[in-house]
Amino acid sequence: MRWSVPPVSRDREREVRHFIDNKTKPIGSLGMLESAALQLALIQGKMKPRIVRPSWLVFAGDHGITAEGVSSYPSAVTRQMVLNFISGGAAINVFARLHGIDLKIVDAGIAGDVPSHPNLIDRKIAMGTANFLVAPAMTLEQCETALATGEHLVETLAEDGCNTVGFGEMGIGNTSSAAVLMHLMTGLPLESCVGRGTGLDESGVARKLAILEQAAARVPHCRTPLAALQQYGGFELAMICGGMLAAARLGMSIVVDGFIVTAALLVAQKISPPVLDYCFFGHCSNERGHRDMLRFLDRKSLLQLDMRLGEGTGAALAIPILRAACAFMSDMASFDDAGVSRADE
Amino acid sequence: MRWSVPPVSRDREREVRHFIDNKTKPIGSLGMLESAALQLALIQGKMKPRIVRPSWLVFAGDHGITAEGVSSYPSAVTRQMVLNFISGGAAINVFARLHGIDLKIVDAGIAGDVPSHPNLIDRKIAMGTANFLVAPAMTLEQCETALATGEHLVETLAEDGCNTVGFGEMGIGNTSSAAVLMHLMTGLPLESCVGRGTGLDESGVARKLAILEQAAARVPHCRTPLAALQQYGGFELAMICGGMLAAARLGMSIVVDGFIVTAALLVAQKISPPVLDYCFFGHCSNERGHRDMLRFLDRKSLLQLDMRLGEGTGAALAIPILRAACAFMSDMASFDDAGVSRADE
Repeated sequence: MRWSVPPVSRDREREVRHFIDNKTKPIGSLGMLESAALQLALIQGKMKPRIVRPSWLVFAGDHGITAEGVSSYPSAVTRQMVLNFISGGAAINVFARLHGIDLKIVDAGIAGDVPSHPNLIDRKIAMGTANFLVAPAMTLEQCETALATGEHLVETLAEDGCNTVGFGEMGIGNTSSAAVLMHLMTGLPLESCVGRGTGLDESGVARKLAILEQAAARVPHCRTPLAALQQYGGFELAMICGGMLAAARLGMSIVVDGFIVTAALLVAQKISPPVLDYCFFGHCSNERGHRDMLRFLDRKSLLQLDMRLGEGTGAALAIPILRAACAFMSDMASFDDAGVSRADE
Repeated sequence: MRWSVPPVSRDREREVRHFIDNKTKPIGSLGMLESAALQLALIQGKMKPRIVRPSWLVFAGDHGITAEGVSSYPSAVTRQMVLNFISGGAAINVFARLHGIDLKIVDAGIAGDVPSHPNLIDRKIAMGTANFLVAPAMTLEQCETALATGEHLVETLAEDGCNTVGFGEMGIGNTSSAAVLMHLMTGLPLESCVGRGTGLDESGVARKLAILEQAAARVPHCRTPLAALQQYGGFELAMICGGMLAAARLGMSIVVDGFIVTAALLVAQKISPPVLDYCFFGHCSNERGHRDMLRFLDRKSLLQLDMRLGEGTGAALAIPILRAACAFMSDMASFDDAGVSRADE
């Protein structure tokens, strides 16, 4: 089946754990670095995994639901921020440069024309989604195109030798889309999925919740991943979902960002649960709901910096942690190498 | 007064906050990166702070208290691990190389001879401390020498242009010393200060606690920082304490590691509380007690990776976070630069 992802083999788990435990340190004392190293080793089938050509795909799209006043920023900011991305001035540009991450910006469906630019990949599906309060966000065909677009972009990265991919997003209104997807994929009440987004106050959140309750009621029993994505998704969310499934199928490591990107993963793991084997969770966002998403997936994030910016920034900041996990596997001495006594010897 | 540290001026706080809030992102959305950037800007008196020549001093010393069986590793491991440090095979070597950190190893008082080596600074005070169950860990003169040694080493770093210093330690038995110092400096019961160290089991922890209760009873009302350090400290702990006070006095940023290094800071902040203004807390260690130390100091760590290795490793892994804080201050566009609309415009 097209979207099916093979689970990561755990055949060599004991051997990898033994290798880790022989490094010159008390057993388990590198904590989450050890679990990350184990997971990387199993994904790559190598005792000394490496992060090669880490690449971030930042998908930008607009959302018809913004007509209902669900965001504190105007929809035009999606396009303005994309111009900021392509001129290198946004947070994700800064962090990508700092950590040697290759950054590609994708127009998934910005509601406005963006001048062509070498740093921008034009895959615009439409001038934003439809307003999902009153109609499906996209047609089934648009949804399938978006999934396939994410898939193809990741395949191209893999062909270029990248083995670690991060996903970012920009789209005014997309916490609304993500909140409904979270609700449908996890079964949690919508109230615990809706947060402040870019900075709503309490009454703004209440209004957003009321609108999303009404929108979710439009399609009863909309629980299959594709139907949920088509009815309430965004073009950027669908491309991320397709991209994640492709990355996992190709044996790449996936660095998951915050609330929006994890919403796309909730859809992807409903389509093929083993995609989770390939995921590292960069950070826990301050957007309400992200903590519950991680709990639902039974995963812990590498960083907890109280960030809520999106763009793939939280995931980008976690790259040094993954590099450190690889570095201790390849460069640290073992007890035997170094002639260090073990505990209770 | 020799050890007095001037507080960091907050005069420019509003101006720095305004600069941060004008970056192209929702207000506050970079979370702890914003608070770190603010603190760095105030310490350095610059809107665009930088991490220059970050340098780690790793102090190694032995502890007479190990004669009581308080550790799961033999005392000889201190020396063995120092040989591992100078040949580049330990975790701190790996992370220092990865993040461009200059690493210096200091023999503060290893119980054994270590061959001279360009990577090792010999400041050995004695072949380990005395067993503080039955006698003061060191003489007052040794304690003062250790404080001054830490001070001078940090002054040398500052002369070489370093503006950010991390402290690490290696010393079998030093969680025992740190636990008693924590107890004396915070007033918390010894039971909540004593943990597994390098890997004791439950009965080992109970035995360690019983010994430390007995040791702490040896000197009633030992609450002044110098007396505590002399009675129950270690040479590496005293050097770190002196090094931190010097670093703060010189306006350097201090990256604090885990349980041991924070115990040294508890002593330092009792000597001169403003030292805290210069501190960044690299990580929260899994060693019992570290969380309570951070709570006592009312500070949050940058990383929570369930590590408990020491050597300055947790602090080293936080350097990319501090670099990211500097990078967004210097390189990110403002709303005006980028022509991006603000919230509710």
